[in-house]
Amino acid sequence: MADNEMMAQEVIISDPADGAEEALQRYLEQAKPFIEEHGNFERLVANYQFVRDIVPRLAEADFVQENGPERQEFKQRLLKTLDEHTRPSVVIESSSSGLPSSAFIQQCENDPSRVLIGHPFNPPHLIPLVEVVPHPGTSDESVAAAMKFYRSVGKRPILLRHEVPGFVSNRLQAAINNEAYSLISRGVVSASDLDLAVTQGPGLRWALTGPIATNALGGGGGPDGFSRRMERLGPSIQAWEEDILKNRFDWSRESLSALEDGVKKSLGDVDWSNLVAERDAVLVQLLAAKSKTAIIGS
Amino acid sequence: MADNEMMAQEVIISDPADGAEEALQRYLEQAKPFIEEHGNFERLVANYQFVRDIVPRLAEADFVQENGPERQEFKQRLLKTLDEHTRPSVVIESSSSGLPSSAFIQQCENDPSRVLIGHPFNPPHLIPLVEVVPHPGTSDESVAAAMKFYRSVGKRPILLRHEVPGFVSNRLQAAINNEAYSLISRGVVSASDLDLAVTQGPGLRWALTGPIATNALGGGGGPDGFSRRMERLGPSIQAWEEDILKNRFDWSRESLSALEDGVKKSLGDVDWSNLVAERDAVLVQLLAAKSKTAIIGS
Repeated sequence: MADNEMMAQEVIISDPADGAEEALQRYLEQAKPFIEEHGNFERLVANYQFVRDIVPRLAEADFVQENGPERQEFKQRLLKTLDEHTRPSVVIESSSSGLPSSAFIQQCENDPSRVLIGHPFNPPHLIPLVEVVPHPGTSDESVAAAMKFYRSVGKRPILLRHEVPGFVSNRLQAAINNEAYSLISRGVVSASDLDLAVTQGPGLRWALTGPIATNALGGGGGPDGFSRRMERLGPSIQAWEEDILKNRFDWSRESLSALEDGVKKSLGDVDWSNLVAERDAVLVQLLAAKSKTAIIGS
Repeated sequence: MADNEMMAQEVIISDPADGAEEALQRYLEQAKPFIEEHGNFERLVANYQFVRDIVPRLAEADFVQENGPERQEFKQRLLKTLDEHTRPSVVIESSSSGLPSSAFIQQCENDPSRVLIGHPFNPPHLIPLVEVVPHPGTSDESVAAAMKFYRSVGKRPILLRHEVPGFVSNRLQAAINNEAYSLISRGVVSASDLDLAVTQGPGLRWALTGPIATNALGGGGGPDGFSRRMERLGPSIQAWEEDILKNRFDWSRESLSALEDGVKKSLGDVDWSNLVAERDAVLVQLLAAKSKTAIIGS
């Protein structure tokens, strides 16, 4: 809508689910303190329009971000509609959290080369990461346009060179979570101590240096820090990995029940809504502190 | 040395390695700005004494923290010495980063029930976590004394109910790292994008809410948030896990070389010493922001 900026809203939101518009308004209310501090809440609210049926409005769109349910058939039908009614070469991004787009472009008869994944993270107004994942037929222009768009709205996109189920971040989370589930269901630690083992330890570092840079610093930093750590700790790590594999969380009824009992016992009294408020408040300070640094903030 | 506080140093440090005392002084110099801001650097420096041979001084110790090399035979001999020369019931903590203490108490002829693991994390003056891991014969009194000691010096100890190789945090790190190594060596993402996939995404949350609380919030929070997420995303997660397992990093020469090439290409130009300075500066702000909250800071 670049050509009619003064009169029309720049964002059209649609969700056919009952109560979706009210849920959106509740989300915005919750995010209001943050948005007021870092932008213009009135303008943001005035800048979107909620519609029940998106189809008649698709011809106006310059960029599409779909957030439909994570079901292959649903996305196939949705993508067919989006591809049919948008103007040629308009980029269509899917928020799919693990299903690669090659799984749902089969019915795009117009131009599937402008379809790709742009996967954001909760809470989306605070977490900068967006995973951009082209399918084998996505055009380079569409990838470049997506990366540019996300950067233009203050996001930090990363590019996957080829499709893998779960993309990068959800695979990394699945890997750590499986071991967390195993340790809790086997009674090695309580669920709250498991969380502290991250929030008071490596989680503090992972907010600032990723797994690879953290490894390199563990090896003393410098150009050979990473290799030095692999050489020094490799045998110990491989022994731990063997024990992790042997004791993987197996998703059986018994394991799930032991895990859920442990979580209820340990986290049953958490004040979740105040936890979210505290998390968001500290996140804002953390992002501000990071943005003032040259290397970590880049 | 509580009875002679005004005259003697409270901490005796020993390391027979060449240059160890100088290395310690360099570490303290590096940590000086932080310590000056949060404590008394002069007093800290005046409060320790470096000795070449610890054995004649062990009878004075009220609490022992050993940080010897992670080699079983070495630790067996060291623990024999510590057990032989310390007063009865003095707690002996080992900083072992993955080897449980039942692997090295065999030669303790005096009292192995006061031996246990107290595993800190780098940088130790900033990261609060200490993993306390008793062996099957560790006394409850020794566990309680260790937890109390770490809390008294501002640490956040967690208690493992039984021994596992790698304890909790190093197992969680091994789990995420194996998948990180796989994604980089297979060319799915660059090493720097892999790090951003954590530092700009889930790593920001893990500094504040651990894996379990993050899952529960992903399921909408509340007492059933965790179970709700497991039910909703379980099938997708299990599919990702299968693909992760199938593509595990195998530590072969070829995989290691592809990984190390990727890391060099991506992180070859990092200014490591400024990265450490930035990390520490932001860590201090993050810890201060967390300490002002009621739930996250507890």
